[in-house]
Amino acid sequence: MYKGKARAHTNIALIKYWGKANKEFILPMNNSLSLTLDAFYTETTVTFSEDLTKDTFYLDAVLQDERGTKKVSQFLDLVRSLARKDLFATVESQNFVPTAAGLASSASGLAALAGACNAALNLNLSEQDLSRLARRGSGSACRSIYGGFVEWEKGHDDATSFAKVIPSNQWEDDLAMIFILINDQQKDVSSRDGMERTVATSVFYDGWLKTSPLDLQTAKEAIAEKDFEKLGVVTETNGLKMHGTTLGATPPFTYWSADSLKAMNRVREIRQLGIPCYFTMDAGPNVKVLCQKKDAAEILAQLETTFSKDQLTCAYSGPGLEYLETDVKA
Amino acid sequence: MYKGKARAHTNIALIKYWGKANKEFILPMNNSLSLTLDAFYTETTVTFSEDLTKDTFYLDAVLQDERGTKKVSQFLDLVRSLARKDLFATVESQNFVPTAAGLASSASGLAALAGACNAALNLNLSEQDLSRLARRGSGSACRSIYGGFVEWEKGHDDATSFAKVIPSNQWEDDLAMIFILINDQQKDVSSRDGMERTVATSVFYDGWLKTSPLDLQTAKEAIAEKDFEKLGVVTETNGLKMHGTTLGATPPFTYWSADSLKAMNRVREIRQLGIPCYFTMDAGPNVKVLCQKKDAAEILAQLETTFSKDQLTCAYSGPGLEYLETDVKA
Repeated sequence: MYKGKARAHTNIALIKYWGKANKEFILPMNNSLSLTLDAFYTETTVTFSEDLTKDTFYLDAVLQDERGTKKVSQFLDLVRSLARKDLFATVESQNFVPTAAGLASSASGLAALAGACNAALNLNLSEQDLSRLARRGSGSACRSIYGGFVEWEKGHDDATSFAKVIPSNQWEDDLAMIFILINDQQKDVSSRDGMERTVATSVFYDGWLKTSPLDLQTAKEAIAEKDFEKLGVVTETNGLKMHGTTLGATPPFTYWSADSLKAMNRVREIRQLGIPCYFTMDAGPNVKVLCQKKDAAEILAQLETTFSKDQLTCAYSGPGLEYLETDVKA
Repeated sequence: MYKGKARAHTNIALIKYWGKANKEFILPMNNSLSLTLDAFYTETTVTFSEDLTKDTFYLDAVLQDERGTKKVSQFLDLVRSLARKDLFATVESQNFVPTAAGLASSASGLAALAGACNAALNLNLSEQDLSRLARRGSGSACRSIYGGFVEWEKGHDDATSFAKVIPSNQWEDDLAMIFILINDQQKDVSSRDGMERTVATSVFYDGWLKTSPLDLQTAKEAIAEKDFEKLGVVTETNGLKMHGTTLGATPPFTYWSADSLKAMNRVREIRQLGIPCYFTMDAGPNVKVLCQKKDAAEILAQLETTFSKDQLTCAYSGPGLEYLETDVKA
């Protein structure tokens, strides 16, 4: 029996990953840049054993059906092939999110699973190889191997596409990200389907692809210079640009709901009060607000005039992959 | 004394005018296609006289200040140059809109003014020349010279850029457009500034420019075939595409407010009930719903579950420029 346990935190892209160049290996069309956050994480235990006759997956202690297990099992196939071991496994994952409202991310989940497998089978994978492995489970998971600011270099094949830390002199410790949970709309186009439709059909995708490297460059300069306004402006610009591409797709679609717009407008209003803060959105209606730690309490107070407290979560920079002791049993 | 009076109706573009190729002559970057509507119109009387020492403009019986008169006066300069008459004028305009909430359009206003000047000075302008003249006052005004479906051919200079009727066998009489008035946000980027910023900076503008001719072609086919779904789909697609371009501008901006999204979602929901209807938006938060006349009552009833009655106006196809008797006096 081979057992391992790991914890990984979610990350939010400031420069977005939006489109696959290769679906099998999950190679992205452009580099992306993220901040790993402390408030949301996944702890996963994996147990490989000769006694098992199939893979089993428990998410938050609930046994998943075949459909819910498929993605995990496909990832385990990669690990088995890497380890040259043909063993089934039991995977137990727990998502730590302040509310149950769908902020659990496949990024932390697949990064934690990669780490747990690395520990269980003594694969001794480097962080770079772990990042490559996590990427095959879920693209953005490759960034959750590291803490702080992280860049995913798109590369050109399985060997060259991985994330790495961006030197920042710990500037991330001065920052915060406030999550505004928007409840008023179901996500009806998945992230995967949305980026696929956009790459295949959006008349704006060229504009995205040509300019996101410039946004990335600006973001990296801002980090090197510890220039918050510069980082905030490019974060907001790049996020809106990503959401603009969906309006040029066939058929067009949007991840925004009415309350997303309300949240974005509130952020603009708070900024007009002189408090620097900038929003970003991913493939869903929630709005994330990048700010400086020193302003977080004031911004939360402002947001509480529009949103209820349980819609708001303040997160700070989080660590990279952590290995945990497995419970002593069996 | 030379006096004339005319009435012109507003029009809503199904394929949008979005960007100027030439600011002085108001030549557009792409052809556009509109429907002239009965519910919103302007009646304008113009009186040229040797006794006047400056241009004066009354809008809804209120004397406008210098700033409010400037656009009218610049337009009168064009007319004076065309007529080779150097007379100042008094312009009295009345906007007929169901509510006061900002649906008055410069399209009907400038088209009515062009017509009133034509009548006052006996210019005997052809409809084509009237369309060219109105265009110089406000681009989309060139379409309000005609009723029903109208195409603005972008042309390449002042002589070749004008609107014309699209043959439709009166299909427009079977259609309707429901206006949903959104009150929750001031328009903070004017139509003129928005298109200028978009042309100058949007990374999506190329995508817009390359594909709007295809949308126009599709719309004209739909009109020729009286295919409502085809016309609706391309109307909604083209409108969303226009609004996508603003998210790729520097700085990015949007005309959407939270309630605009609510309105768009309601239209999608009504469509899912099996009632064909499609939305479009212009450079502001209001949402316009293209539908068939036979479905208008049912769609209004559906929209009344979300919006108040005074936010909703149902319009039908409207006529082109009409000349009116001037009051007998002076």
